[in-house]
Amino acid sequence: MPKIVDHDQRRAEICDAVLGLIARGGSRTVTTRSVAKATGWSAGTVSHYFDSRDELVLGALRRAAELHEQELGRLLADRGLAPMEKLHLAVRATLPIDERGVALTRVFLDYYADAANCAAVHAEVMRCLVRWRGLIERLVEGCKDDGSIVSSRDSATLAVELVALTDGFALHALLDRAFMDRLVENDGIRIGFLDDTWHPIESGVGRVS
Amino acid sequence: MPKIVDHDQRRAEICDAVLGLIARGGSRTVTTRSVAKATGWSAGTVSHYFDSRDELVLGALRRAAELHEQELGRLLADRGLAPMEKLHLAVRATLPIDERGVALTRVFLDYYADAANCAAVHAEVMRCLVRWRGLIERLVEGCKDDGSIVSSRDSATLAVELVALTDGFALHALLDRAFMDRLVENDGIRIGFLDDTWHPIESGVGRVS
Repeated sequence: MPKIVDHDQRRAEICDAVLGLIARGGSRTVTTRSVAKATGWSAGTVSHYFDSRDELVLGALRRAAELHEQELGRLLADRGLAPMEKLHLAVRATLPIDERGVALTRVFLDYYADAANCAAVHAEVMRCLVRWRGLIERLVEGCKDDGSIVSSRDSATLAVELVALTDGFALHALLDRAFMDRLVENDGIRIGFLDDTWHPIESGVGRVS
Repeated sequence: MPKIVDHDQRRAEICDAVLGLIARGGSRTVTTRSVAKATGWSAGTVSHYFDSRDELVLGALRRAAELHEQELGRLLADRGLAPMEKLHLAVRATLPIDERGVALTRVFLDYYADAANCAAVHAEVMRCLVRWRGLIERLVEGCKDDGSIVSSRDSATLAVELVALTDGFALHALLDRAFMDRLVENDGIRIGFLDDTWHPIESGVGRVS
């Protein structure tokens, strides 16, 4: 019987290996050789799917965005959670509080820096940002529908703000060990919405609702 | 009479030229040659002060941090402004709404990305972040003193949150032209503090205080 290779599956596995490398050592550690070693395949096999280092890292960015979108999509579809709880978990899923989150934040940070200098990277980053905001906007809509968010401002604007806030927290956590430890210890940061604004709630401390 | 050269002044001028290059084209456009061209001095003169490209960009980071700190320091010392107004202007001074702000955000973004991979850069970035938070903490203290911020949470924690929020807005503005345009049009973003949380107030829209 001929060997059946699921190419999409293999591409995804290669990208996951790249994300693992980035999480542990940054994108500088990504080479066709290091990815081959991490996957157990030959450099030739890796090159068959991604013919340059840039393609490998771009593939990892798309994979990270895909995993992030899948997770937010699952939250959207979950009927057992209240909308505000979904929003809290969506913020949590974006923070670098586990290996996947660290990889996600690192790969996005690298791409944010490159986006300022490269139109192709900028287009890819904006695509990710627009989809991310779109998913958050739908979660915000859910909160408006059940009354847990009351605001005269449109959901798109509120989503843009929450995404910027979340990303600021994620990037600073990556830089600042103490900040990161606090996030991990508190299992993320709780986000509420009160008086027309986002509301970071520290567990137990300064809680107003 | 011998020519008197103010070396600190010249170093600062070189760094300002580097910041101008970064604002317009990103840190990739920084070379000893391009900086020489921008300052009107020879490559030899530039090399006398900064003996490598890395030193030039690191010098620019320190200069950007220094300019930022000076601006926040001036705000702190200003007796004609209410504490909350100072805090608003401190947030505004960090956003990429003019050439200096764009350079500041771009240079920090490049360094954030490098910090994940290089201990020396990480140390410099953390030093900047700690000083930035320290200045914001003092502004928050001023707001607590005059009652414009009422919170059981300590000023250091509130400063960490506001700095992360501000940086998230700055980085996303750099990536997203439409978001940037909105910030420029509104002359930044107004930040208030209400019910124990930071409060982005869009001018005129959704204002609750």
